[in-house]
Amino acid sequence: MTVDSDCYAVIFTSRLNNDAQGYEAMAARMVELARAMPGFLGMESARGADGAGITISWWESLEDIALWKAHPEHREAQELGRRQWYESYRVQICKVLRDGPRRPPEA
Amino acid sequence: MTVDSDCYAVIFTSRLNNDAQGYEAMAARMVELARAMPGFLGMESARGADGAGITISWWESLEDIALWKAHPEHREAQELGRRQWYESYRVQICKVLRDGPRRPPEA
Repeated sequence: MTVDSDCYAVIFTSRLNNDAQGYEAMAARMVELARAMPGFLGMESARGADGAGITISWWESLEDIALWKAHPEHREAQELGRRQWYESYRVQICKVLRDGPRRPPEA
Repeated sequence: MTVDSDCYAVIFTSRLNNDAQGYEAMAARMVELARAMPGFLGMESARGADGAGITISWWESLEDIALWKAHPEHREAQELGRRQWYESYRVQICKVLRDGPRRPPEA
């Protein structure tokens, strides 16, 4: 991802329940869906063995983020997350003010 | 963390080298140091088995972030990270525009 103009980040922090059956498949599907959305710039995820995870997605505009939030299949996933998968979660929407280059630069 | 007014997030994404000796101890020390800095609001980290990690720290102001970046012991850690621990890394500084509540709320 390079940031030539405005760029927004969604910070999603979560903790999975012990029983998170079906989560991995849905998470993979969400990545696939997000990539196809307008304004999608990138996504990175990390989850430790303790179940605590962080996903960042980057977008061109707040409107793009709102569209992604409202995507029907994504809404289903959000609902399943609330009901089943997440012990807790939190979403923050941010404006990227300064974007350091990836080091070393990508080949 | 609650956000009553302005709040800034530093998104640090990194990938560890296979040989990251000393990293865990330094990471723990950095958490301890950051907590004692002015304007510190919180920190969360996740790292998967593949070495890809994300750390978010939240701060009251950009000045607080600059002070933390310039802390002598933190600068040493940054230098060690560049030289030894990180295969790659990236830092973004963001302004939090919307902060969803932690769900469910903390007890």
